[in-house]
Amino acid sequence: MGEDKEKSRTVVTINNQQYTIVSKEGSDYVNKVAELVNNKMRELKELNPYLDSTKLAVLTAVNIGSEYIHLLSQLEDEKKDED
Amino acid sequence: MGEDKEKSRTVVTINNQQYTIVSKEGSDYVNKVAELVNNKMRELKELNPYLDSTKLAVLTAVNIGSEYIHLLSQLEDEKKDED
Repeated sequence: MGEDKEKSRTVVTINNQQYTIVSKEGSDYVNKVAELVNNKMRELKELNPYLDSTKLAVLTAVNIGSEYIHLLSQLEDEKKDED
Repeated sequence: MGEDKEKSRTVVTINNQQYTIVSKEGSDYVNKVAELVNNKMRELKELNPYLDSTKLAVLTAVNIGSEYIHLLSQLEDEKKDED
């Protein structure tokens, strides 16, 4: 902190576990991200109630990663259209 | 499977653990996503070697989620510019 370009520390709850996230983004942003992760994790837990927490969290990362790559291709396609 | 619009089943390795991912996307896409998650997870593990696997996976999801939301705002900004 201090010299570190004012990093924020935000405590979030994901899958009933608290995490302190240190970020250059403000707390609003971090809370928004945590909400996305928490919602996706809950969704996957409902579909796979017997999955252990680690696997659930990895699959959550895979799901969000998949949406991220979709979005990335969409953005690249739009850039191509501009050329 | 079968009636389910040809979902692919892809076995991927993330953080030394195997996962079978069932997806409408092909295996190439799933492998690309798994690589993204695996790389990000390894990066975070190097920074936080004593974090347990669940926390590591949740923080991986948070990191990718953060990039996803960044990208989403970027895309929305570009759409606004077009109006």
